[in-house]
Amino acid sequence: MSTSSNLINKAVEHLSKFPGIGQKSALRMALHLLKKTESDTIELSQALLTMRTEIKFCRQCYNISDAELCNVCTSPSKDESTVCVVKDFQDVIAIENTGQYNGHFHVLGGLISPVDGIGPSDIKIPELLQRADTGAIKEAILALSSTLEGDTTEYYIAKKLREKGIHVTTLSKGISVGGELEYADEMSLARSIRNRTNL
Amino acid sequence: MSTSSNLINKAVEHLSKFPGIGQKSALRMALHLLKKTESDTIELSQALLTMRTEIKFCRQCYNISDAELCNVCTSPSKDESTVCVVKDFQDVIAIENTGQYNGHFHVLGGLISPVDGIGPSDIKIPELLQRADTGAIKEAILALSSTLEGDTTEYYIAKKLREKGIHVTTLSKGISVGGELEYADEMSLARSIRNRTNL
Repeated sequence: MSTSSNLINKAVEHLSKFPGIGQKSALRMALHLLKKTESDTIELSQALLTMRTEIKFCRQCYNISDAELCNVCTSPSKDESTVCVVKDFQDVIAIENTGQYNGHFHVLGGLISPVDGIGPSDIKIPELLQRADTGAIKEAILALSSTLEGDTTEYYIAKKLREKGIHVTTLSKGISVGGELEYADEMSLARSIRNRTNL
Repeated sequence: MSTSSNLINKAVEHLSKFPGIGQKSALRMALHLLKKTESDTIELSQALLTMRTEIKFCRQCYNISDAELCNVCTSPSKDESTVCVVKDFQDVIAIENTGQYNGHFHVLGGLISPVDGIGPSDIKIPELLQRADTGAIKEAILALSSTLEGDTTEYYIAKKLREKGIHVTTLSKGISVGGELEYADEMSLARSIRNRTNL
């Protein structure tokens, strides 16, 4: 799927590095730019460059941010006594988009993984414990993946935060809302039976 | 699907202008860039900008080109006595990728469309007739979409070229009637070039 133009081939090569974008989609994207005005491409390139070079990490919660402190940390309407602990900034976006959570966040930037040599101090756990020491946090919601690394990290953080008298909760696990029971995986189904709730 | 970062939102807004890229895919692309190094984004932006600003139109066939003459027109292995007449540079890429055609091209840059006020001299038909006058063209393959505009353009060009003693052929109707050329699969397109019929 190469063209006679090296300029286009180079653009396609870079565009096809995006997840889920194959050679054919990348070519369609490149040709789309050629059909639009030059200023459209200039604006796109500028937006991507500005985003990549100017983005910062919030010095309180380590979420990606346009300023020193992120929009969540500076928002007066957010409940700062509740902190949701997540692995990645993607998780912050996902949780914010549910519209069901009105507290602060803490982005770990990874999970404890002894196999990969990642210990508690390699991710933002010491910073979380420091935040806890200020006495501002009443509840910590551990929203980590249900994997070996997620469970290990959850266990470690829960233990440390409980020692500081902080109420620790985790996301409820079970079958997905709106999903067919027969397609649910056995682990989730087993867990949803074990953790069944009163009607 | 907006985030707390205006920098990201701006990038997502531009990325979602690509055909087939929605808000969610655009966000995934933006976050992908944030996880890669700054130089990756710089290289991507540069490749898009360079492509858009440095691309030229071949002065012989009006295909997109890196130089004054495109790679097809300068290639010594291509048969210059056969010219494939197409609407768009996308069609050149599609036909080149079949590997079944070894001649030159002529990109019209549009089709005759009385409804839209587009006449023969609004597209590169006079330039095609000039090329024919040099006596270098023996066969012209009209590879236009099977639409009203495509058929009108085909009829007009065939008439003019036949007057100059040029053998005029058209793609065999292996391509679906009413479909756009750039979306035809390579097998059908290859077949329609091999089985081209006299007009």
